[in-house]
Amino acid sequence: MTVHFQRELDSLKRKVLFLGALVEKSVQLAANALESRDTEMADLIIAEDRKVDELEVEVEEDCLKILALYQPVAIDLRIISAIIKINNDLERVGDEAVNIAQRVNIMARRPPVDIQFDYILMAEKVESMLKRSLDAMVNMDQDLAYKVCLEDDEIDDMNRRVYDKVKEAIGRQPERVGYLINLLLVARHLERIADHATNIAEDVIYVIDGVILRHAEDELKSTPD
Amino acid sequence: MTVHFQRELDSLKRKVLFLGALVEKSVQLAANALESRDTEMADLIIAEDRKVDELEVEVEEDCLKILALYQPVAIDLRIISAIIKINNDLERVGDEAVNIAQRVNIMARRPPVDIQFDYILMAEKVESMLKRSLDAMVNMDQDLAYKVCLEDDEIDDMNRRVYDKVKEAIGRQPERVGYLINLLLVARHLERIADHATNIAEDVIYVIDGVILRHAEDELKSTPD
Repeated sequence: MTVHFQRELDSLKRKVLFLGALVEKSVQLAANALESRDTEMADLIIAEDRKVDELEVEVEEDCLKILALYQPVAIDLRIISAIIKINNDLERVGDEAVNIAQRVNIMARRPPVDIQFDYILMAEKVESMLKRSLDAMVNMDQDLAYKVCLEDDEIDDMNRRVYDKVKEAIGRQPERVGYLINLLLVARHLERIADHATNIAEDVIYVIDGVILRHAEDELKSTPD
Repeated sequence: MTVHFQRELDSLKRKVLFLGALVEKSVQLAANALESRDTEMADLIIAEDRKVDELEVEVEEDCLKILALYQPVAIDLRIISAIIKINNDLERVGDEAVNIAQRVNIMARRPPVDIQFDYILMAEKVESMLKRSLDAMVNMDQDLAYKVCLEDDEIDDMNRRVYDKVKEAIGRQPERVGYLINLLLVARHLERIADHATNIAEDVIYVIDGVILRHAEDELKSTPD
């Protein structure tokens, strides 16, 4: 491939990284907003999602332009096709952060219930998966991508722990079921973000060696709670 | 574009339709398995998902081959890029059907709780959205695609109704909270499938006139329960 193509591809990757940084920030702010019951911060996350949406459209247009202009083949073609999907995943991460923010706005209107679970820690782990899945993409680092995939189990465990805690808390305070279900669903939004990070890592692995990890993984996946 | 390209594209669309039919069937069986507490059927859905996974990989490979071989531009390029994403959505619909089947297996081990909600009806509506989103793709029918997008609200309403019913039922039978949360999550899996159908319909609209409905929609989206 030409120098021009390489330059365009580098610029495309930079844009994807920027999109990644935007949605990572949203996830982090969403966890903080939850912790501090901060509806202003929640509203900010919801408003800022427009930028994520705009950038997603831009990245997709860039991918189509590059395909039409350079007509890449083999690995270069696979990279562009993976970026089309990664871009899609990142936009949905933004949507999950918005979902959390919307739940924060609902919960902030009611007295808090503490289930003794560290959502900030869970969000940090999820953000780190996301960040490293994108690092793996930029550096075409297969080992790192595999590591990210493995961490998904840890997040699933955390999600299950929230489920147990919420179930227990509903037993003690059945009148707070609405609030508690919102807490459960926040953990599920975080878990979905980890799934998107895993999708990204799997796309990177797929690009590198054509191993279809995704579906082998599916078979190993444990049953939900 | 050449006759060859058109022939390849038609064959690709047929394959996507076949994948669509497979996952529609899984969704339908999952709703039946839930209704009849049929773990054999649930196990079948889980086992059959392997076919969905294999077909997804095949469709993606076909897309890459077509891109490399025919180097399509403009609308043809957009169609292939949309199929890459639609294919991805269909595979995830299969995963959601598997999630429902796994919950059926868990719930079938415990005595039933009836929340007076018609899951079969919800599943039928969701299947119909999915089917019509694919019809819209094959016939490039923008009106139909818009209709599918509008129906998503109805599914969101159903999902909210389940939430209210489950909340109420937990109040009455707090000892059955585990079972009831599984019922809640089944409705959420169905709602996710409707989201995938909406994504497909939006991709079709995007291909046809470049209108970025997806993000305009996001702004109008009502807050979650």
